[in-house]
Amino acid sequence: MSEPTADLPIRRYLQGALEETRDLVVVEEPLEIRLAGEPFQVLMRLPGLEKELALGFLFTEGIIKNLSEVITLHFCGTATDPLLPPNVVDVSLTEAALARRGRRHLEVAYSSCGLCAKETVSEIRRQVAPLKSDLTVTPDELFSLTARMQEAQSTFRATGGSHGAALAAPGGDPFLMAEDVGRHNALDKVIGLALLKKRDPTALVALLSGRISFEMVLKAARAGISILAAVSAPTTMALELAQELHLTVAGFVRDRRLNIYSHPERIRS
Amino acid sequence: MSEPTADLPIRRYLQGALEETRDLVVVEEPLEIRLAGEPFQVLMRLPGLEKELALGFLFTEGIIKNLSEVITLHFCGTATDPLLPPNVVDVSLTEAALARRGRRHLEVAYSSCGLCAKETVSEIRRQVAPLKSDLTVTPDELFSLTARMQEAQSTFRATGGSHGAALAAPGGDPFLMAEDVGRHNALDKVIGLALLKKRDPTALVALLSGRISFEMVLKAARAGISILAAVSAPTTMALELAQELHLTVAGFVRDRRLNIYSHPERIRS
Repeated sequence: MSEPTADLPIRRYLQGALEETRDLVVVEEPLEIRLAGEPFQVLMRLPGLEKELALGFLFTEGIIKNLSEVITLHFCGTATDPLLPPNVVDVSLTEAALARRGRRHLEVAYSSCGLCAKETVSEIRRQVAPLKSDLTVTPDELFSLTARMQEAQSTFRATGGSHGAALAAPGGDPFLMAEDVGRHNALDKVIGLALLKKRDPTALVALLSGRISFEMVLKAARAGISILAAVSAPTTMALELAQELHLTVAGFVRDRRLNIYSHPERIRS
Repeated sequence: MSEPTADLPIRRYLQGALEETRDLVVVEEPLEIRLAGEPFQVLMRLPGLEKELALGFLFTEGIIKNLSEVITLHFCGTATDPLLPPNVVDVSLTEAALARRGRRHLEVAYSSCGLCAKETVSEIRRQVAPLKSDLTVTPDELFSLTARMQEAQSTFRATGGSHGAALAAPGGDPFLMAEDVGRHNALDKVIGLALLKKRDPTALVALLSGRISFEMVLKAARAGISILAAVSAPTTMALELAQELHLTVAGFVRDRRLNIYSHPERIRS
């Protein structure tokens, strides 16, 4: 398996002088997801949790509806298997799931588009049922979970080049976490991890190190996640979708403060 | 034209209490790029510089080789034109450019993939000639340009939810700048801006607020940009490609220090 960081020679300019030194850099590698042996999607990702990434991606893109639609899921990670190159996840799906591959969720969302954010959100609203979860969390729990995620972001601390995502019960057990070079991948990995560990994502809060865009809310909603809390900012379209799908979005969760942008009823003070 | 920020009602948790207040949130909207009237790509973007975004995207994806391959470029931005919805850029290309649309640059890059980063980089190396620019820049010039970009990131300062990219001569004239909800879009916008203003990108340094991934280096190289300096971190695969294509990458340009990761000869101390 590839390491998450690489120790590379660099030149550092500091206090007016250049010096030869070394620096830890986050590893980025392609990963190809194959469906029934056919290339489906290439993701640029941080090595690690490959099966989880493929599973989470297929789930949050609307290709699979649950784990029972996955027949086999193979990842080798070394060059020893002539039938499975190292950066390939090979997935066999049920016929029902396979039939959805030509109709990716986000593409469907955009099919009526070029028009406006409102129309795109309405189109999603017709496809994805609003969340009905009565999960709640307190600000102190969110501060504690966010601190724990940041503590666990070892690749970020070493390189400054990765995002983190966590899925956790408000009380902290279970606590699942993943890092990746991309925000979307980090969320897909931790959702895939929950599926493989048979943890119901609908009972968990999602914590994100980065920003909350439209696609992040859509991925969370597809996984049944009703509370999304991020260290950084949301976008307007993320909030329009969150409002429509009854998702609670908190942003700027840092320094013991936070902003609640939608469905505040799930955050008890 | 849409505004870049929206003033929304939120609840803020601060010092143990929830208060009703308002917050500026960065605007995200879909943009559909049409080629000869046919849907080609939907990008989620910050409104503004739409023609530049479409042009930069087509250029850095390898669909167009220069501005002379663009016959017409229309963006309306209001609902008044019944033939051109507000979030659509309609582009007419020469036949030679149009023929490249089915063969997008990144897809070609990945076609041999599922294997390893090295193989993907080698594949790109066969398609994109290494940069031969003798442009140089000093650390002080990079600090000055980065400070100027940060000063110009008004949407980021208001919302915390956007990235910035700039293209500038080492001495600061010209200085072109764009913001977007996505790193890739911000770079494409400023490249499109340079093309429309007939500024040769090969004589300019690129400054980025965010991280330097493989795709960012590929986009820069396609535009002939030989120096890429970012406030944040690079990835290993970005550096492998930069090394192969003779691109200078500097990271962590902040607090009057920086790291040089590839082709340091273009940075004179």
